[in-house]
Amino acid sequence: MENEVLIFGHKSPDTDSITSSIVMENLERKLGNENAKAVRIGNVNKETKYVLDYLGIDEPEYIENIADGQNVILVDHNEITQSVDNLQNAKILKVIDHHTMNFVAPYQLYYRAEPVGCTQTVLYKMYKENDVEIDEKIATLMLSAIASDTLVLKSPTTTAQDIKTVRELEKRFGLDINTYGVEMLKAGTDISEFTPEQVINIDSKLFEQGNKKFRIAQVNTADLDSIFKNQVYFEEAINEDIKKENLDFYVFAATDIINSNSKIISLGNDAPVVEKAYGISIDNHTAMLENVVSRKKQMLPPILNALNGDINL
Amino acid sequence: MENEVLIFGHKSPDTDSITSSIVMENLERKLGNENAKAVRIGNVNKETKYVLDYLGIDEPEYIENIADGQNVILVDHNEITQSVDNLQNAKILKVIDHHTMNFVAPYQLYYRAEPVGCTQTVLYKMYKENDVEIDEKIATLMLSAIASDTLVLKSPTTTAQDIKTVRELEKRFGLDINTYGVEMLKAGTDISEFTPEQVINIDSKLFEQGNKKFRIAQVNTADLDSIFKNQVYFEEAINEDIKKENLDFYVFAATDIINSNSKIISLGNDAPVVEKAYGISIDNHTAMLENVVSRKKQMLPPILNALNGDINL
Repeated sequence: MENEVLIFGHKSPDTDSITSSIVMENLERKLGNENAKAVRIGNVNKETKYVLDYLGIDEPEYIENIADGQNVILVDHNEITQSVDNLQNAKILKVIDHHTMNFVAPYQLYYRAEPVGCTQTVLYKMYKENDVEIDEKIATLMLSAIASDTLVLKSPTTTAQDIKTVRELEKRFGLDINTYGVEMLKAGTDISEFTPEQVINIDSKLFEQGNKKFRIAQVNTADLDSIFKNQVYFEEAINEDIKKENLDFYVFAATDIINSNSKIISLGNDAPVVEKAYGISIDNHTAMLENVVSRKKQMLPPILNALNGDINL
Repeated sequence: MENEVLIFGHKSPDTDSITSSIVMENLERKLGNENAKAVRIGNVNKETKYVLDYLGIDEPEYIENIADGQNVILVDHNEITQSVDNLQNAKILKVIDHHTMNFVAPYQLYYRAEPVGCTQTVLYKMYKENDVEIDEKIATLMLSAIASDTLVLKSPTTTAQDIKTVRELEKRFGLDINTYGVEMLKAGTDISEFTPEQVINIDSKLFEQGNKKFRIAQVNTADLDSIFKNQVYFEEAINEDIKKENLDFYVFAATDIINSNSKIISLGNDAPVVEKAYGISIDNHTAMLENVVSRKKQMLPPILNALNGDINL
């Protein structure tokens, strides 16, 4: 359509990217921009599908690329590498975001970013500032994205403004981010269709340090029990891998995205290194790592330190 | 001071840069940031001095550079080349702007830019959004900057939002941007301390095209009469230059920044080329160029075309 303004989030869109495009379309239309249209540049994930199904909202239309000179609004991202392939030929009218910045535009535009946990916290302010009515569907989309980005207000990225937004929306519409948010997060971590072997390989990384070879695999979950009731099957799959790849040890971390902890299964001849690294005792091959959610920042470095001899084995 | 947040506009600050730093300091302090401090990274020009004197406000403190890790807020600019020399070592907390963008930050921040004529139009919205009281001094600072950037709402850069801001502030405080704005602009174009020779050399550029050599000099004014009552003295100075530099012709343009016109004095043997170029008649060595304010975009190209023979002489 002539003069269409396409609104989209980043590649591999998460719940914030998809719902922010829908919420921004609504805001633009309420402000008289009838040409505003939410689209997506990647597949909708299970968590977002739960949100859209819950509200009876269709997925935004998928677009592969855009025409030269296309008017666009970016939500939940600003960097060209995270956006539609030919963004450099578009005319960016607005950006609504909450990320670090790397942005060039040789023309004036509306740019609105804030250091908050979720794009929807910024959009909520924009609705208020423009005196635009928020209905229950829009409110639920906002709550969904904030619940997703902040793990129901429990991640360290949560700000006072995210909490304020949630509390105001909850009060006004009688919503409850805890019940709904947990259900939504659970839907996103649904692994019921996967075999144990598939689960441990959803996101598994191989590391080598000195003469030691090991893997740290991670899976997000909202329900540790649903994982650990099948512990015996995961151990079988892990031991298969250890044997096949001649690993010295293996850490499988089920990260509880609700409580921001990770429960691990640790196997292999050198599994004791994990005890030294984290200062824990492994019992029945498992241990709880309190407040540990990040492999890159929290799980790997202590193990590398332990292997380096910084910690006495 | 520890934890000070320095707020400043661009190099060679104009009225928007200086007043926006003061207005943003006020907003930050009203919102509880007691460490906010407006500063400047260049000299205050005559127009801005008029504003500060009118309101009895001191010039912000001059800073040459900033400490590593200094917390800063940028107003009226975002590009590193336009900012304080060692900006790359600062922590930019916020940017409030209305320009094209070329900005990188490896951390989250508050970034607010809108495609409007003046930073103060954005700041006015931020006061409203945060329910922060605007007093008459703040209102006058806002009006001053908008009058400056938009030539009292007459430049092509003026937007509906700038006009709305001005009308609301005028109504609320009984102010009048026309009377005050013209006085302010006049103060900025005060050439009373200069000789005619100095005036024509404030901003004079030499051009050569084919075998022709000419100058186009420009001076901004809010009062063409104050220039042209001294026409005879300017002609003397111009003729001196023509003789000294062996120029084929000379265009001296007094640009009326209130009405967005330029009145020229054209002298030299080839002065008729100017008539052909602009499609005007020169009378008593002068002519009015309606809606012409830019030497680069509006004054030079027609003359080059005429000299190139694109227009028959």
